[in-house]
This record gives sequence, C-alpha cells and structure tokens, in this order.
Amino acid sequence: MRSNRAYVVGIRHERPHTMSILDKVETVNDVATENDAAMIDRAYLSRYLLGKWADVRLVSRALAGKPEMHNIPGLGMDEHRARVLGQLKLLVENGQVHRAFPAAYGGLDDHGGNLAAFQELVAADPSLQIKSGVQWGLFTAAIAHLGTKEHHDRFLPSAMSLETPGIYAMTETGHGSDVSSIATTATFDEATGEWVINTPFRGAWKDYLGNAALHGKAAVVFAQLITKGVNHGVHGFYVPIRDENGSFLPGIGGEDDGYKGGLNGIDNGRLHFDHVRIPRNNLLNRYGDVDENGNYTSPIASPGRRFFTMLGTLVQGRVSLDGACVNASKIGLQIAVTYGNQRRQFSNPGQEETVLLDYQRHQRRLIPLIATTYAQTFSQEVLLEKFDAVFSGLDDSDASREDLETMAAAFKPLSTWHALKTLQDCREACGGQGFLAENRLTLLRADMDVYATFEGDNNVLLQLVAKRLLTDYSRKFKDADTGSLARLVMEQVTERAVTGSGLRRLGQNVHDLGSTARSVKELRDPDTQRDLLTDRVETMIANIALELRDAKKTGEEAEAFNRNQSALIEAAIAHGHLLQWEAFTNALDKITDDGTRQVVTWVRDLFGLHVIEQNLSWYLINGRLSAQRASAVTAYVDRLITRLRPHAQDLVDTFGYGQEHLRAEISSGVEQERQDEARAYIAELVRSGKAPIPEKSSRQ
Amino acid sequence: MRSNRAYVVGIRHERPHTMSILDKVETVNDVATENDAAMIDRAYLSRYLLGKWADVRLVSRALAGKPEMHNIPGLGMDEHRARVLGQLKLLVENGQVHRAFPAAYGGLDDHGGNLAAFQELVAADPSLQIKSGVQWGLFTAAIAHLGTKEHHDRFLPSAMSLETPGIYAMTETGHGSDVSSIATTATFDEATGEWVINTPFRGAWKDYLGNAALHGKAAVVFAQLITKGVNHGVHGFYVPIRDENGSFLPGIGGEDDGYKGGLNGIDNGRLHFDHVRIPRNNLLNRYGDVDENGNYTSPIASPGRRFFTMLGTLVQGRVSLDGACVNASKIGLQIAVTYGNQRRQFSNPGQEETVLLDYQRHQRRLIPLIATTYAQTFSQEVLLEKFDAVFSGLDDSDASREDLETMAAAFKPLSTWHALKTLQDCREACGGQGFLAENRLTLLRADMDVYATFEGDNNVLLQLVAKRLLTDYSRKFKDADTGSLARLVMEQVTERAVTGSGLRRLGQNVHDLGSTARSVKELRDPDTQRDLLTDRVETMIANIALELRDAKKTGEEAEAFNRNQSALIEAAIAHGHLLQWEAFTNALDKITDDGTRQVVTWVRDLFGLHVIEQNLSWYLINGRLSAQRASAVTAYVDRLITRLRPHAQDLVDTFGYGQEHLRAEISSGVEQERQDEARAYIAELVRSGKAPIPEKSSRQ
Repeated sequence: MRSNRAYVVGIRHERPHTMSILDKVETVNDVATENDAAMIDRAYLSRYLLGKWADVRLVSRALAGKPEMHNIPGLGMDEHRARVLGQLKLLVENGQVHRAFPAAYGGLDDHGGNLAAFQELVAADPSLQIKSGVQWGLFTAAIAHLGTKEHHDRFLPSAMSLETPGIYAMTETGHGSDVSSIATTATFDEATGEWVINTPFRGAWKDYLGNAALHGKAAVVFAQLITKGVNHGVHGFYVPIRDENGSFLPGIGGEDDGYKGGLNGIDNGRLHFDHVRIPRNNLLNRYGDVDENGNYTSPIASPGRRFFTMLGTLVQGRVSLDGACVNASKIGLQIAVTYGNQRRQFSNPGQEETVLLDYQRHQRRLIPLIATTYAQTFSQEVLLEKFDAVFSGLDDSDASREDLETMAAAFKPLSTWHALKTLQDCREACGGQGFLAENRLTLLRADMDVYATFEGDNNVLLQLVAKRLLTDYSRKFKDADTGSLARLVMEQVTERAVTGSGLRRLGQNVHDLGSTARSVKELRDPDTQRDLLTDRVETMIANIALELRDAKKTGEEAEAFNRNQSALIEAAIAHGHLLQWEAFTNALDKITDDGTRQVVTWVRDLFGLHVIEQNLSWYLINGRLSAQRASAVTAYVDRLITRLRPHAQDLVDTFGYGQEHLRAEISSGVEQERQDEARAYIAELVRSGKAPIPEKSSRQ
Repeated sequence: MRSNRAYVVGIRHERPHTMSILDKVETVNDVATENDAAMIDRAYLSRYLLGKWADVRLVSRALAGKPEMHNIPGLGMDEHRARVLGQLKLLVENGQVHRAFPAAYGGLDDHGGNLAAFQELVAADPSLQIKSGVQWGLFTAAIAHLGTKEHHDRFLPSAMSLETPGIYAMTETGHGSDVSSIATTATFDEATGEWVINTPFRGAWKDYLGNAALHGKAAVVFAQLITKGVNHGVHGFYVPIRDENGSFLPGIGGEDDGYKGGLNGIDNGRLHFDHVRIPRNNLLNRYGDVDENGNYTSPIASPGRRFFTMLGTLVQGRVSLDGACVNASKIGLQIAVTYGNQRRQFSNPGQEETVLLDYQRHQRRLIPLIATTYAQTFSQEVLLEKFDAVFSGLDDSDASREDLETMAAAFKPLSTWHALKTLQDCREACGGQGFLAENRLTLLRADMDVYATFEGDNNVLLQLVAKRLLTDYSRKFKDADTGSLARLVMEQVTERAVTGSGLRRLGQNVHDLGSTARSVKELRDPDTQRDLLTDRVETMIANIALELRDAKKTGEEAEAFNRNQSALIEAAIAHGHLLQWEAFTNALDKITDDGTRQVVTWVRDLFGLHVIEQNLSWYLINGRLSAQRASAVTAYVDRLITRLRPHAQDLVDTFGYGQEHLRAEISSGVEQERQDEARAYIAELVRSGKAPIPEKSSRQ
C-alpha cells in the first residue's frame, strides 16, 4: 500500500529515512524511561521558531512594537483609518514593504523575507497589516506581476512609495469566490483605441475593496476583456479613480462599506463604472494583449490556464494570512497562559487558592491549542520556503506551483479557524478580564474574524484541496474499472486493519484488553501517528472517488459531488492536518538541544493524537482502532497534557513577544503582584492576631 | 435500570405516558411512509414558539423594534453609554421594567413575564438589555430580595424609577466566580453604630460593575460582615456612591473599565472604599442582622446555606441570559438563512448559479443550528415556567429551587456557547457580507461574547450541575460499598448492551450488517434517542462517582475530582442536552397542527441525533452503538438535513423577527433584487444578440 501514498495525498510525503536518536530510544524503551526532567532551552527554541527569516522577522517585530504603529482600542473609525494611512507611510520610511519588488525599482527580489516581515505586522494592528497588504501585496504586486516593463516604469514607483494609494478591484457584490464570473466589462473601442470599463448592474459593483472608500487614487480593475465581440475572460486594467482633491473621476462612483466587525482602520468601499474610458496600454498585458486593431493575443492559449496564471499571485495573500494567524494565536496564548499561571480562584479547604492552569479543564482548553500553534508554526515555515522557492524562480515548475497552491489552500483555513478558536478560548479562559480591550484578546479576535472568508473562503479553498486529492487519485487509477477500484478500497480496509504496516500492530490487538501501556507505546511511535493520519485521508478520498466514478456513468456527478461536499472538505482538513504533522515531525529532527527536543516531541505527539482524538469515531467505525485503543488515545492525550503543563509558560514565552506586542495588562505580571499583595496582607493580619474568626469556628 | 434514572439525572425525567398519534404511525410504518409533503403552518408555529408569555414578549419586541431603542453601529463609547442611559428611561416610561416588583411599590408580582420581556430587549441592543438587568435585575432586585420593608420604602421607589441609577458591587478583581472569598469588609463599629466598608488591597477592588464608571449614584456592596471579631460571611449593604454632581463621595474611589470587546453601551467600572461609613440600617437585613450592640442574628443558622440563599436571586440572571442568547441565535439564523436562500455562487456548466443553501456544506452548517435553537427555545420555556413557579411562590420548595438552579446552570452555558457558534457560523456563511456592521452579525456576536463568562462562568456552572448529579447518585447508593458499585457499573454496561430496554434492539443487531433502514427506523424512535442520551449521562456519572469514592478512601478526593474535571463538565453538558431533548419532545406533543408537528418532529430528531453524532466515539467505545449503527446516525442526520432544507426559511421566519429587529441589509430581500436584475440584464443581452462570445466558443 505504501506505494499508493504519493498519488493519493497530493503533496508527496516522504518518510524520513533516518530516525533521530531520540526516536530510536523511544521505540526501544518504555514510556516511563522518557526524560521527564527535560527542560526547554528557551533562547534556543525561541530563535528556532523564527525559522529561516528570523532576522527579518525580528526587525519587523521591533517596528511592530513601536507605539506609533499600534492600534488604539476604541478609536473611532475615521481616526483609525487616518492613523493607519500614516502608519503605511512609516512602513515606507522604514523600508519594510519593498523587499519583494524588483531590484531595478528599489526592491530586493526577496519574496520569502517580504512575507515574513509582513506577517509580523499583525502584532502592531491587523488593519495596518491588511491595508499594507492591499497596497503592496495586491495593488502594487498586480502591476508587477500582470504588467510589463512599460507599466512597471509608469506605475510601480508611485505605487511603491504610496504616492498613489491603490485599490485591488476584483471582488464584486455578486461574485467573491467565483472570480471568473465577475460581470464588470472592459470593451475595446477600436475607433478611439480605448478600453470602456462598465458596470452593468448593481451586483457587478466592485465591493469590499480596501482603500476604495477614501484613500485610493488608482485601481487595478479586473474585468471581462471583450474585443471584436469575443470575451477573453478576466484581465487587470490600471484605472485612475480619484483626482488630486480626492473626488471621483468622471463616470466613477462608489460608496463606503462603513463600519465592520473589525479591521476598521481600513477604508473598504464599493466602486462602479459608467463607461469609463482608459487608454489601450492601461491593460496589464503580460498574459494577454490587444493591438490597436483590437486583435487579442496571449502567451497562454488556454483561457482557463491563463485565468489561473493571472490569479496565481493571490497565493501570496493566503501564505501571509496563514502566517499572520499563527502569530495572532501565539499572542493570544502568551497572554492567557501567563494569566492562567498567576491568577488563583477557589481553594480546597485549608489550602491556598489554586492557580487556574492547575485545573484540568484549563489545561485541556489551552495546552492542545499550544500544540496546534507549534504545528502551524512549522507548517507555515514549510509553506513560506515553498513560496519563496517558486516566486524566486529557484523551483518554479508547474508541479511546484500546484503544491504551493494546495498547501496554501490547506493551511490558510486551518490557521485562520485556529486563531479564532484560540483567541476565543483564551478570552474565556481569562474570564471577564479577557473581554476588556485593555487585555487585547477580543479586539484582536474581531480583526482576525474576516481572515476566515477573505483571500479565498475557507470552505472554497478546502474544496480545491479535495479536488487536487481526487485528481491525484484518479491519475493513479485512471485505467482501473469500478469493480477493481471497489476491490481496492475493500482490500485497503481489510489489509490496513490486519496486515498493513504500522496499523497492523493496532489491528492485531483489537481484542487485547488491558494493554494500555503497550497501546500508549505504539501511539507514541511517529510511524503509528503518521499511518493513522495518512490512512484517514487515503480512505476518505478513495471512498468518495469511487462514488463519484459511479455517478459519472449515470450523469449525476454534480449531484454526487454536492452530496459528498462535506466529506470532501473533511478529507481536505484531514490532509492539512497530516501535512502539518509532517512539517512538525521534520522540524523535530533539526532540533539539536536534547531537552528541548524531548519537550517539543511531547508537543508533537499531543498535536497528532489530539487530531486523532477529535476524529476518533471515524477510526472506530472504519475499524482502524479498537475501543480499547481509542480509549488509550484519550488517556495518552491526558497524560501528555499533564506532562506539558510545567512547560506551558516556556512554550509560550519562546514565541518571543514582549509587552509592547502583547499589550495586555494581564500579561504584564500585574496579577502576580495583586496575588502577592493579597497574601501578604492576610499573612500580616493573621500575624497581628486581629483576623476575624469565621462564624463557623466561632461557634465551636 | 429504569428506576435508577430519577436519582442519577437530577431533574426527574418522566417518560410521557401517552404517545402522540404521529408517534404511533411512525413506529408502525416505514420511513418512506412519512408525510414528506408536510408543511409548517407559519402563523401557528410562530405563536407557539412564543410560549406562555407570548403577549408580553410581543409588546417588549415591539418596543425593541423602535428606532430610538436600537444601537448604532460604530457609535463611540461615550455616546453609546449616554444613549443607553436614555433608553433605560424610555423603558421606565413604557412600563417595561417593573413587572417583577411588589404590587405595593407599583409592580405586578409577575416574575416570568418580567424575564420574558427582558429577554426580548436583546433585539434592540444587548447593552440596553444588560444595563437594564444591572439596574432592575441586580441592584433593585437585591434591595427587594435582601432588604426588608424599611429598605423597600427607602430605596425601592427611586431605584425602580431610575432616579437612582444603581450598582451591584459583588465581583472583585481577584474574585469573580468564587464570591464567598471576596475580600471587601464591612466591620461594625459599636461606638458609632455604623458599618465601615473597606477595601484592603488592590485585588479586592470591586470590578466590572455596570453603572460604576459613570452613572451609578448608589450601590449594593457585598462584603464580609464582621462584628465582634467574627466574620459572618458575605452580606449586601446599601452604599451611596456619588453626589448630585456625579463626584465620588468621601472615601470612595474608582476607575473606568474602559473599552470592551462588546457591550460598550454599559459603563463598567471599578470601585474601592477607604473606611467608608454607612448607618447600621443600611445592611440589607433579611437574612442576617446586627443590633445596635453589634450582636448578629440570622433566620438561617448555617452560614453556607445563608450564603446560597442570599445568592439565590442570581438565578434570575442565568435564566434571562439563556433566553436572550436563544433570541440572538434566532436573529442570526433568520439573517443567514434568508441570505443563503437568495445569494447564488458558482454554477455547473450550462446551468444557472446555485443558491448557497443548496450546497450540502451550507446546509450542514446552518440547519443543525436551527434544530438546536428550537431545542433551546423549548428548554428556555420550561426553565422560565420553573422560575416563575419558584419566584411566585407557587412551587417554592427546596427541591424546586434546586431543580431550577440545576436547569439554569445547565442551560445557560449551552445557549451562550450556541449563540456564539451560531452567530459566527452565520457570519461566515454570509462571507464578507457577514462581516459588515450593516449586516448585524459581527457586532451582535461581540456583544454576546461575555455572556459565556458572566453571571456564572460556563465551566463553573457546569461543575455545579455535575456536582448535583454526583450528589443524586451518591444519595441513591450511599449504603453501597465500592465492590457492589463496581459490579453495578459493569452490569449496567453489560445489561444496556444486551438486555436493557430501548438499547437492546441496537445491541442485538451489532453484527446485523446491511440493515440501514432498520437502524434508521430505530433511531427515529424517540425512546431510542432518549435511551441513548440518558445512558450516556448515567454511565459517565457512575464511572466518575466510582473513581471519586475510591479516592476518598485514600484522602485523594480533590486530586481525583480535578483529574475528572473535564469528564464532569462533559457529563453536565450531556445532561443539559438530555433535558433540552426532553423539553423539545414534550413540546412536540402539544403541537396540534399535523403538518407542523411532522416537520418539527424532524427538527427534534435532527437535534437528538446530531448530539449523538457529536459524541459518537463515546457510544462506540462504550459498546452502545455498533460501527454499523454509528454510520446510520450520520446517514440519517444527512437525510434529515435534506428533508428539512425546503423548510429552512419557514423554520426561521417563524421566529417572528421583522426587519426592525434583524436590521441586516442582506435579510431585506435586496440580494434577491440584485440577482433578479443581473439575470434580467443577461437575458436581455442574449435576446439582443449583442452578448460577447466566450473565447473558447469563438475558436471552435
């Protein structure tokens, strides 16, 4: 079965050929022999977590820590928008936003470093991050990627310098996820040699555009390119929007999207065009051009392939949102764990009050979130390195781009949802304190909310991942008939349960009651974790593929696809988890400090087993785990949480944020001061003999 | 086994003695014979959902629909606070807030109606709801419940009329959930006959108090009552706070809690007291008094019982938060389902674009939320009727109060979390539109966030429920030794799987492959659903009780309790689900319209089976469901969702909110207009022969 894997899981997973020394020790010895006294080397791990672009990250993080870059809770929308525009200028002054652009225009051609720096801005203010993303990651990047030298010369300098605040006018009120169906048209007028940009109806208004409500002077407008009565699909056009005084140019109108659930430092707005004329050479013509006679040419023959090529730069947004969300999760956890380690509530009779993080429920809420955040830190690093390789041209093959797209489409949903869950759980774990703006969590969560649906709605992205998995699967079995596919699936189920490597041991012992220790030992084995995670993706995809294949024959493929939509999305999520687990496991091998690697291995095990625990019913229904083994999963998750509890503060402190980033009163140590003051007061009262006697005691 | 149930589940579940006609038909015939053409009678169901206090609700809802009662998105904090204070005066003018008070003081002695009306205010502005809750549900209610006639005469009229905006000063920075440990002291000075209110250290500052930052003129301050060197525990004291000009009175200080994640129409703040003196008769002395010589007396001998009696009125807050959250969920669903039925995105080749709610994933996200909201509507009604019976004195026994406390502690966590999940899922289901303030969802969610941790942190409340379940269990088995308890648990497991009623049929057929139809038929049987839900609560509690009992012997009960904290909370949640399911099932019996009852029965089945599906691994691990049956649960959930999809709009429209309550642009029908306009435009273009040809077609 091993040989099928590469086809089924899309991204090629390679089993590491060498095991780390620690792995060998672990598989030989029993659980009890692990080094329970292992400690994290904080300085070492903190640096390690910063990854390849550590220095770039630290410079950007230092800037994000400056007061002038911070959001001010409760600031009105108008003031917030003005403040963020001012901050964009500071980014330019500090040279923080030009890394990705060509050296010829003052950039550094550094794609990975650019996104690493960008992701750190979330600590300053997510509005600042996203508005700078609109200006340089979307508007300016569209000029760079979709335009040619003429456009670069004409438009790049003022876009890069923010002299021209710009708009990326793609989304319409009626079309967000389905970009190919946008209804704005750009029709070539041969008589004048101009493009006529037009909005045919209300649903075709450009909507949700950053910079559109106030600051944008020009836009890259995406529209259906029509010439000689033929629609050549979506292309980008450079369109001036406002004059020097900020008034709309003739034929252009729009309105403010107004107040939002978050990100109110960005002036999102709507635009519409009434037969607005722009010169022929304002078409960004790298992937499609029209000559003065109205004849269309393109270096990419297939309209579909051309469309996806032009949209290819959007992956940059997904990569960076993934990283930004991981950072937001880190900030939330550093705040909540710090408070949870200081705040006390309730006591057992005669004892001092209990620290919140000593409660099992508190641990169960926060520690698995730490594990997932570690996994996402490592998977973001893999994604960013892949992105850098593709965009720098070092590894820019079709297969690489496809892998990059799939990884980004898998990780961005997981990390955006994880950030929302993490910030919410952290907020609740801090009680009412968590709700105060002075403690950061709620407003940060409000800003991150839209990350789940913009730059690719999470569920739409996950379907792309699932389609890729199905394609890989069908490539492998393109000559097989349904009967042999069905046999294969059945064999797979049987084989895995009985003789498949890794799972074999689990399967053999289905009736082996009372061997929790052995179960745990197996669950700690990375091969077991990998097999369990991989098997789920493979089996889910195989089952769906079979059903779709049957449906195709009767012409009911669309219905079958929709009937399996949830299952497809679940399979894509499972695939994302597997990729994160692989990234985590690969990162473990490179940790050179033994104590650190031991503790972080427990974190990896917790991540893997927590994912398995959350899908336990699947493993049980499909015969992958016996009831006994399934119980062992939960038991071992509990044990890992207990084991990691003493390391919780180290694990979040190594995220490396200072008070200037956290900006949460309760993370400042103030709670510890309050606790110390209270206990000193009570001790003094007792010492003085003036402490009142409890009524109960007084009557004895 | 049946006879144990009443002990184990706390609230006494009674199996309805009569089955409805429909139930009989269902258990006799096959699934296919159900009335698939059943339709909801919208007017009938809408009224039915309003429950016993329908008319009171409608009056309050009409007021909540008036523009002057609405929140204004993006309004600054200061303006919002002033606006809400003005709205409180409108509530007084409209006679909306005095229902619960004694007739002698202008009230109606109507406790249930009071909370029903209060819950509806969430549709106007949650800040308005909660600030009115502070004024009348906490401050004024404390005077009424903890004070005696003298206090009623002195303080009630100006509190009721809002002449004295008041503060309920219970929570301290260092103590929220653990009220009995607050550190503010009220020491009786026999020399002057005064109370000396004092804040000993920073952690003892009163915190998070509505009305404290700005508007509050007086407070009911909770403090440890100390006289003659004895601490008699927490009591309430009436303390003037600000003078006519709004300045703090001598010895009182405080600060503003500032901007929050939501509810910014409420001026939460902190207060501290430096030996502030108040007259002896400002002690609210119904449950404890001190005479002029400093001698303490109380009608309740036990300090513990006295404390819980004084805090008994807090249940009012939990009951009303439960109802408010159910209403918030309704608002979110009415918005998202309406938009999901109008907005289209993506199409299969050659077909028109698909309505969002026709996507399986969209259905899977929203329709189970509708089912849970129905369940919570009915369970809130049961809770409110119980509350009314207890507080009106109709059924004010210790057992009734205990049941009320347990139900409120079980339902409030479930409904507050459900509202947050629902509003978030609705917001994501509406994409970027859902994030705009003009579409309501994000700001409503932000306001509801703190409902999960105030008036009893959800996890703390659920532990109270679990403790009640354990107490009931131990009462039943108080004379049993551990050995016989262990046997009992084992017998229970075995018996349920093999011979227990209801589950027997499931157990018998563990190896009966291929009988999905029969499985589904059984799952539709309410007895099966009840047994599955009940069995889980019973078994979880029995297992924990056994472990705690063992631990008690070795003096490790506290550790064992903490080791089981998560399991206890899960058991409490399971118990809450069971109670909700029972409330739903009882409510079904009273529906007199056949079509409505049929559709709402599917909703009940979806609620019950969705809960079971979410805990499927438990049922599998514990041998309650075979893998085959477990698969049937998911298959039937899918089928129910498909079946309910055509009724989704009816199911949310019957919640009965108008545009004046929803206040979401996308719920207004505007999306349907946009879709119609777009399609008319395209049809006209095609008719005119001027439609551009797609490039792909042009080359063929």
